Amino acid sequence: MSELVITTLDWVPSGPRGFVRDLRLRWACEEAGLSYSVETIPFEGRETNHLEQQPFGQVPFLSDGDLQLCESGACLLHLAQKSDKLMPRDPAGVAHTQQWIFSALNSIEMVSVPWWFLTMSGQAENPLTGWLSKRLDQLERVFASREWLVADRFTVADLLMADVLRVPLVRQLGNRPATEAYVSRILERPAFEKAYADQMAHFERADKARQK
Amino acid sequence: MSELVITTLDWVPSGPRGFVRDLRLRWACEEAGLSYSVETIPFEGRETNHLEQQPFGQVPFLSDGDLQLCESGACLLHLAQKSDKLMPRDPAGVAHTQQWIFSALNSIEMVSVPWWFLTMSGQAENPLTGWLSKRLDQLERVFASREWLVADRFTVADLLMADVLRVPLVRQLGNRPATEAYVSRILERPAFEKAYADQMAHFERADKARQK
Repeated sequence: MSELVITTLDWVPSGPRGFVRDLRLRWACEEAGLSYSVETIPFEGRETNHLEQQPFGQVPFLSDGDLQLCESGACLLHLAQKSDKLMPRDPAGVAHTQQWIFSALNSIEMVSVPWWFLTMSGQAENPLTGWLSKRLDQLERVFASREWLVADRFTVADLLMADVLRVPLVRQLGNRPATEAYVSRILERPAFEKAYADQMAHFERADKARQK
Repeated sequence: MSELVITTLDWVPSGPRGFVRDLRLRWACEEAGLSYSVETIPFEGRETNHLEQQPFGQVPFLSDGDLQLCESGACLLHLAQKSDKLMPRDPAGVAHTQQWIFSALNSIEMVSVPWWFLTMSGQAENPLTGWLSKRLDQLERVFASREWLVADRFTVADLLMADVLRVPLVRQLGNRPATEAYVSRILERPAFEKAYADQMAHFERADKARQK
């Protein structure tokens, strides 16, 4: 049995499928060739049935032998230390990979997730649209001059940034060709395609088990 | 001259004083006894005058010799590697410190900053209040059973979590005694008091320079 265990929900409705964040960890393991297994916690009672492992009731969490870890950003940093396919080994490469992980989560997703939440709640005029558009414009300027975020190569920072940007509503907000080319290119990676297909198959198997 | 240079704005209006995020880096340096200097970029034109150093036009950014780094979370992780006063040295201690840094930024601040933004824009009924209250309740459960986030001692994860939680509007949202005790205790640390006083003095000097 593999030492790396990714825990996710046993089932989710169709809406979030393909976006549950165990995908980030599956994808990183696939990129790095790290073997892993997937375990589950029940969808019913998910807000309180695993607070010991994740104090905010979210998934995924990761175990690596004795180590238990949550927060997808922290799990990705932990996995990145296992393979230079995910993060360069030199100090500047490590620091800049970390910097762009925080940019993906704190300069983009900190705006895009609440923006998405307000959009889905049916607010006629989303008060966060201006802020999100500005951040995406700033990012477009970055992608106009480079192919990858760090060290002229794919890193876990690109994995996370592309995962944040691939949300359809975010991708459709405005026309940013360099960003779109970046996201499209990264989503063609075999490791993403496998992780995505595996998550979809995981929840389809759960549908069948429920129908029995 | 010190090798560590924290760059912030040369002046800000009174509202954000005490909360500009160079404070996080000043505070970490003070905790660790790391010497540093502070440089500035002009407030006027701040959205575009330092995109080379910070692609989203924010402050702070850090230089450490040849290394240029932005995103306060990434800068804190970088500083934490310099001193075990900020982060334990064992792999589990490192991983859990990173986990709680991401929790502070992505499970709490990802909700509290947009919530604060909507509150300040004068939305009668803030649509993010339920979400933020739930996250703060989950955190209250954590603080009810422990004094520190990691390894039974102060780490940079506590520095960041307390900085996220000390925002007055957030602190006043509901009654969570364990969280309040945690925040109060951490804000009494001499390193925080010095960093706070230094930031306030920095902007007061700028007022005087402007009046000339």
